[in-house]
Amino acid sequence: MAVYTEISDQELRSFVGLYNIGEVQSCKGITEGVENSNYLLQTTQGTFIVTLYEKRVTRGDLPFFLGLMEHLAVQNFPSPTPVRGDDGEMFRTLCGKPASITTFLPGLYPKKISLNHCKQLGMATAKMHLATIGYKFERQNQLGRSGWSNLFGQVFDQINSFHLDLRKIIEEELVYLDKNWPSDLPRGIIHGDLFPDNVFFQNDLISGIIDFYFACNGTYAYEIAICLNAWCFENDISFNVTKAKFLLKGYNSIRKLNSQELAALPLLARGSALRFLLTRLYDILHHPVGALVNPKDPLEYFKKLAFHRKATGPSAYGLA
Amino acid sequence: MAVYTEISDQELRSFVGLYNIGEVQSCKGITEGVENSNYLLQTTQGTFIVTLYEKRVTRGDLPFFLGLMEHLAVQNFPSPTPVRGDDGEMFRTLCGKPASITTFLPGLYPKKISLNHCKQLGMATAKMHLATIGYKFERQNQLGRSGWSNLFGQVFDQINSFHLDLRKIIEEELVYLDKNWPSDLPRGIIHGDLFPDNVFFQNDLISGIIDFYFACNGTYAYEIAICLNAWCFENDISFNVTKAKFLLKGYNSIRKLNSQELAALPLLARGSALRFLLTRLYDILHHPVGALVNPKDPLEYFKKLAFHRKATGPSAYGLA
Repeated sequence: MAVYTEISDQELRSFVGLYNIGEVQSCKGITEGVENSNYLLQTTQGTFIVTLYEKRVTRGDLPFFLGLMEHLAVQNFPSPTPVRGDDGEMFRTLCGKPASITTFLPGLYPKKISLNHCKQLGMATAKMHLATIGYKFERQNQLGRSGWSNLFGQVFDQINSFHLDLRKIIEEELVYLDKNWPSDLPRGIIHGDLFPDNVFFQNDLISGIIDFYFACNGTYAYEIAICLNAWCFENDISFNVTKAKFLLKGYNSIRKLNSQELAALPLLARGSALRFLLTRLYDILHHPVGALVNPKDPLEYFKKLAFHRKATGPSAYGLA
Repeated sequence: MAVYTEISDQELRSFVGLYNIGEVQSCKGITEGVENSNYLLQTTQGTFIVTLYEKRVTRGDLPFFLGLMEHLAVQNFPSPTPVRGDDGEMFRTLCGKPASITTFLPGLYPKKISLNHCKQLGMATAKMHLATIGYKFERQNQLGRSGWSNLFGQVFDQINSFHLDLRKIIEEELVYLDKNWPSDLPRGIIHGDLFPDNVFFQNDLISGIIDFYFACNGTYAYEIAICLNAWCFENDISFNVTKAKFLLKGYNSIRKLNSQELAALPLLARGSALRFLLTRLYDILHHPVGALVNPKDPLEYFKKLAFHRKATGPSAYGLA
């Protein structure tokens, strides 16, 4: 969660006045979103989310992100829909930062992951991959494989305090993944950050997927690999093969993974674990004083990476 | 702001099921409230606030606080109204902690204080003082004058790092205030924490006063002294006598301060500045790791205290 910026009443009313969404009734900072500040806005016409883009999200990427959300919403995918101002714009400046208003999605994100959650997630992910095929904009993954060495360089000096093996293992991984990374798997737009707190459920069905601010062009199976990491480990970092099976079953029911994608999953899961290990190390070492967000534990992903390094193939994931 | 506790979906639905307020549609941690965790709950019947009492607020005090809010609401004072469960109870246990549901109040708290804000605040404070006269429960001020020496003892060892004069000045104040504290001013229930973020405005009128968890029996004029500190200083800690005049004018229009109360204001403002200096020192020194709240600057109140020490009487506040 993060709310870094306090919006004054006057600024808020002027900003909301540029949209056809009624009068401000209340506006409260909410504890959702790590990169941006989010506010729940209630107006005489309904509930909306105001997002202020604080860091990492650059203004130049906003047309891609917001356009993608609008593209998905048009196809009835439950993503937040950017509200266009009276001038047709999807974002503008508020408190000196880029800001948008999006529709509010009901539902709760799951705190305890069930098999049904995994299955529904798989289905929704496949639907999203299919629904974005017609989206005409592109964005490279800033946190993809080509960025990992750079991230490693930015944390190298300070990570011995977390674990003495960290440097050695990360170096080995970078070499191994570089040598073995698959290059010809089906690609398209991926969400890139499908963690449980970005997925809302209502009555056991997905009611919303939020936070498209890592979305980019990438390998579909890499998205599944992120989900394996984020949804299929128990709290003690034991891997739950049944959850993985339900995830894949849900995905395959909408878009079937081919045999190359399936075979690549262990390697992609290794890469995805490395990605979150590196960004969490970076975040904890560059944690701004006074940021209203707790950095996440990097070692969680060090342990997940250790699991993937020992896996011999899809069978280790219950997927063969 | 603070959200310390993550409520699971199951726990939330069971909890809300004990009230006649409809089905859960969403529940988001909000960045309001320092002592407690607050969630904006949307149900099929409307918007509510769920509060989890994390610390300082003890279970034994909840009947006083929630009863007071209900008492005020019955008299059309814009305080949150505790929603009683189907069993008639105003609080129960959620995630192992005491928890309540209250009505949601619209409005925005002012980020930039205007003269009108001060006048409206004065009027609302006087209305609250009158409206609580019939409230039959009592609660001592845990952070009143008798508690200051104890608080000082708990921070004494570590406060030199903030300012080298802190110990000396606080010691002088404790002696001075003990000797000169007035004992016969009109008393009743006070809110005790009327800071701008606890007061909501809509269309330039007060739409809600929240956070009654410091309410207690006390001197009415001491409440005004807290407001002088919290509303009438500019960001550079210069005192704005016009704001003070508007505050008093508003208050006097509903309940007239007598000459003893007026004469005591400088001393009470000194005491109130010391109270917030001490609690802020305590909070910053006992700031829990990972708490999603930024401790407030204690030296702000050291500077305000310095202003009050130099004031010779109500005229220094533009009040004579």
